[in-house]
Amino acid sequence: MARLAYGAPSFLHRYQGSPTVKHALSVTREQDFAAWYQAVISEADMAEESGVRGCMVIRPWGYGIWERMQKLLDEQIKATGHENCYFPLFIPLSYFEKEAEHVDGFAKEMAVVTHHRLIQKDGKLVPDPEAKLEEPLVVRPTSETVIGAAFSRWVQSWRDLPVLINQWANVVRWEMRTRMFLRTAEFLWQEGHTAHATVQEAMDETLRMLEVYRAFAEDCVGLPVIAGEKPENERFPGAVATYSIEAMMQDGKALQAGTSHFLGTTFSQAQNIRFQNADGQQELAQTTSWGVSTRMIGGLIMVHGDDDGLRVPPRVAPWQVVIVPMLRDADEDAAIMDYCTDLVARLTKLDAFREPVRALLDKRPAKAATKRWGWVKKGAPIVIEVGGRDVAGGNVSVIRRDRLYREDGKLDSRIIAREDFVADTVATLEDIQASLFGDAKASLDGNINRSITDIDAMKAYFNASRKPGWALVQWAKPTGVELEKVVQWLKGEKLTLRNVPSDAEAADGLCIFTGEKAVERVLVGRAY
Amino acid sequence: MARLAYGAPSFLHRYQGSPTVKHALSVTREQDFAAWYQAVISEADMAEESGVRGCMVIRPWGYGIWERMQKLLDEQIKATGHENCYFPLFIPLSYFEKEAEHVDGFAKEMAVVTHHRLIQKDGKLVPDPEAKLEEPLVVRPTSETVIGAAFSRWVQSWRDLPVLINQWANVVRWEMRTRMFLRTAEFLWQEGHTAHATVQEAMDETLRMLEVYRAFAEDCVGLPVIAGEKPENERFPGAVATYSIEAMMQDGKALQAGTSHFLGTTFSQAQNIRFQNADGQQELAQTTSWGVSTRMIGGLIMVHGDDDGLRVPPRVAPWQVVIVPMLRDADEDAAIMDYCTDLVARLTKLDAFREPVRALLDKRPAKAATKRWGWVKKGAPIVIEVGGRDVAGGNVSVIRRDRLYREDGKLDSRIIAREDFVADTVATLEDIQASLFGDAKASLDGNINRSITDIDAMKAYFNASRKPGWALVQWAKPTGVELEKVVQWLKGEKLTLRNVPSDAEAADGLCIFTGEKAVERVLVGRAY
Repeated sequence: MARLAYGAPSFLHRYQGSPTVKHALSVTREQDFAAWYQAVISEADMAEESGVRGCMVIRPWGYGIWERMQKLLDEQIKATGHENCYFPLFIPLSYFEKEAEHVDGFAKEMAVVTHHRLIQKDGKLVPDPEAKLEEPLVVRPTSETVIGAAFSRWVQSWRDLPVLINQWANVVRWEMRTRMFLRTAEFLWQEGHTAHATVQEAMDETLRMLEVYRAFAEDCVGLPVIAGEKPENERFPGAVATYSIEAMMQDGKALQAGTSHFLGTTFSQAQNIRFQNADGQQELAQTTSWGVSTRMIGGLIMVHGDDDGLRVPPRVAPWQVVIVPMLRDADEDAAIMDYCTDLVARLTKLDAFREPVRALLDKRPAKAATKRWGWVKKGAPIVIEVGGRDVAGGNVSVIRRDRLYREDGKLDSRIIAREDFVADTVATLEDIQASLFGDAKASLDGNINRSITDIDAMKAYFNASRKPGWALVQWAKPTGVELEKVVQWLKGEKLTLRNVPSDAEAADGLCIFTGEKAVERVLVGRAY
Repeated sequence: MARLAYGAPSFLHRYQGSPTVKHALSVTREQDFAAWYQAVISEADMAEESGVRGCMVIRPWGYGIWERMQKLLDEQIKATGHENCYFPLFIPLSYFEKEAEHVDGFAKEMAVVTHHRLIQKDGKLVPDPEAKLEEPLVVRPTSETVIGAAFSRWVQSWRDLPVLINQWANVVRWEMRTRMFLRTAEFLWQEGHTAHATVQEAMDETLRMLEVYRAFAEDCVGLPVIAGEKPENERFPGAVATYSIEAMMQDGKALQAGTSHFLGTTFSQAQNIRFQNADGQQELAQTTSWGVSTRMIGGLIMVHGDDDGLRVPPRVAPWQVVIVPMLRDADEDAAIMDYCTDLVARLTKLDAFREPVRALLDKRPAKAATKRWGWVKKGAPIVIEVGGRDVAGGNVSVIRRDRLYREDGKLDSRIIAREDFVADTVATLEDIQASLFGDAKASLDGNINRSITDIDAMKAYFNASRKPGWALVQWAKPTGVELEKVVQWLKGEKLTLRNVPSDAEAADGLCIFTGEKAVERVLVGRAY
């Protein structure tokens, strides 16, 4: 029997379906990337429109991926000394009024609660005019203000610092144009909030969490990212500095997949977070905040999905191995089910990535082929089929979701001795995790143009292809009005400044925008 | 060296502080139970007022207990075949209008979102009149309506049933009088929602989840409960039958700690959840819902707390063993820290209740005595102190939170050989878990009067003590107007019907309220 030792990964089919293959989705990435994205979400049963404007229903497969992300990121958040809390959903308007810049950033898109009771009127339910709130409440778009108010109660002395907390919560931003996972009125996230005695400690924290996000995105979700500082115009409202991780989608666009903000004393001033330092003097605390949201699931889809649906990296897959019994309403069915049950028991005893392997026996009353393709579209890393012949031969039929087709365009389902399959499962899962990341990493690295030095070349680069990738260019880091000019010019080209990569080489040339001496390198690209 | 083999648990000090002991809280249960409850929450750093009406901040120790509850209950919810999803926070008014009884139950206490933007006006932020929603949205008080709408999309055929889902979410009910954890405007919970082909399957599900709740409350949270059906007047709005688990607080009052509802076709009719049965005919699905909330943390406090603060059963304790180093700013400090670090490493290698032991070395810059009492008030199951003398002797000083004082009223801190302590830790944690449950179970069983057969005796029973417990009485299960009379009479005595215990003996006498032949036994008591 063949074992699971596949050859080196082929990049051939990564960005375009093979013409010889009839794929599981009705639309390909090449044909219509936006329609393909919606098709993956729908065909993989990840989420759906809820009937409530801008809000989605996250279905079990989508939510299961989020639970896996939560677990793995939460471990890292705790390992870096943070504790989880929970703060109110509602924020009084007066909290927002205290910080002008923050208000400007959010006030235009918030859900506002104005009444606390309904009454019947002409057979309809309407807000009760008698139950109008004296002070309207906003549904949190982010929690700096309400958490800052708590910090001001908690922090009295330098001994109370640092305060290192996080919450997993839903937030609401009234977006006009929504897209599932990427931009929804309500979304789920974690928001970390910390207070420190010194600028240095707060900056260290900001960069520590940026690195936690980078490692989480790459090692767990398999998303290669560029970590760096956002330019001034892209800062969080009220932040002194904002850092991000940027991932490249298969259409070449950037997705900001996590942000970490150094807030200086903006919020400690507004919310009065003061402490007595070791010399007995009053000081304002230095604060940070940082967040990752369900948006990252959108990134996972657009980086790892293919024309047969989603491909989920094993570390965040709700089920890593799915076993489909091929039943025929015959006597042998019982033996097949026993064989499958035994296989699940063996697999779940194994540890992959230091957790028990997650194996499912799919017992639903449906045809085996329907189930197989259902799991392919959902992107379970390994799909096993077991029929009477497999039981008789002590085998299993194995499909690796990251290598779905053979060179001849046929489905690559391999018959493997059960013992060999079980013995290889952990290594196979590790290999799939590495291969999905490796493919995406090669694609990211290969699609950043680092040699463009003038505006015309940049225009040409971005117009030469429908999926141009990014450009890393030198610039003089203009601010204020000068920066605004650059931003507006880029906007005309549908381009944005992404970030200044932390690991970019030093500048040694001229600013592509102003011709002045450049001071650093900045990423330019189209973006979600 | 003594080992941790303590004698049989003493019930002596359970409900009153010993007069010889100066307790850690400034108010005792005996003096003022309500003030004591608030003192525990405050002194154990569990939660605090947020400044937002009716909403609390759940601090790390309180939230850590909730995370433990979530983990253990979630495992059971998944083990019984349910999958987690996420549904919108906002529900259009029209969804509520479809189910009249449900509206009546909730419409009076909901937060209503009417605008989606703020503007500056006279220097203040106000809802933008231009951004008024066409249809107001309510912040979910519970999700039957919006989840029912999803079920109607998901369910077409009998093959699609059962649908077994759950969500962990925040909900809002505009309560006029709030009390932390017990009744807050916003609270956290899980809500399970299922749809089935037959009444029998839906009833089986309803009772299965009631049993999951009973086992979770008793085995994990250490809360002994009475599981049974609520009388008609206490049903969830729209339910055909509501079941609950009821826990007895130390002041004798009942706390409904979880509910499971058989909803029949109420919501499938309103939301049009229909399926084609095996005979090709259209039928309405039978639905259920069930929930447990952060309210259970209030129950944990009022069942296990004592005059020194909280006592957390080990299975739900964020930290099971806390190690306080007794440092003196001396050379020996380094050796003490090494000794403690080594101890944590040994403990975390152990498994208790099939999970790694959660051990914390408390390195904060504070006095050892302050830290010790802090952890006593928080209720960490085992607190260890390590000083220079312990290191020299290879010992640790051990405090068991469930047996805090010796008979003479002194703190019961025992010097135990480190090796013995480590060897006994798992058994000790199991013993603490069992002892907290055992004490509370004895108290519950001992405080239900089962022999009252007439109204006057019942009045006398409930008036004889400030903490009377409950009465299990026979009744004829009146309905409608007759039931309302009973409920009103009870209300005059500040009493409520709790539930009809599933395991109660059959009735064999007369109804205590009507004198008719009784049909079952019902629990009567004061309640939160």
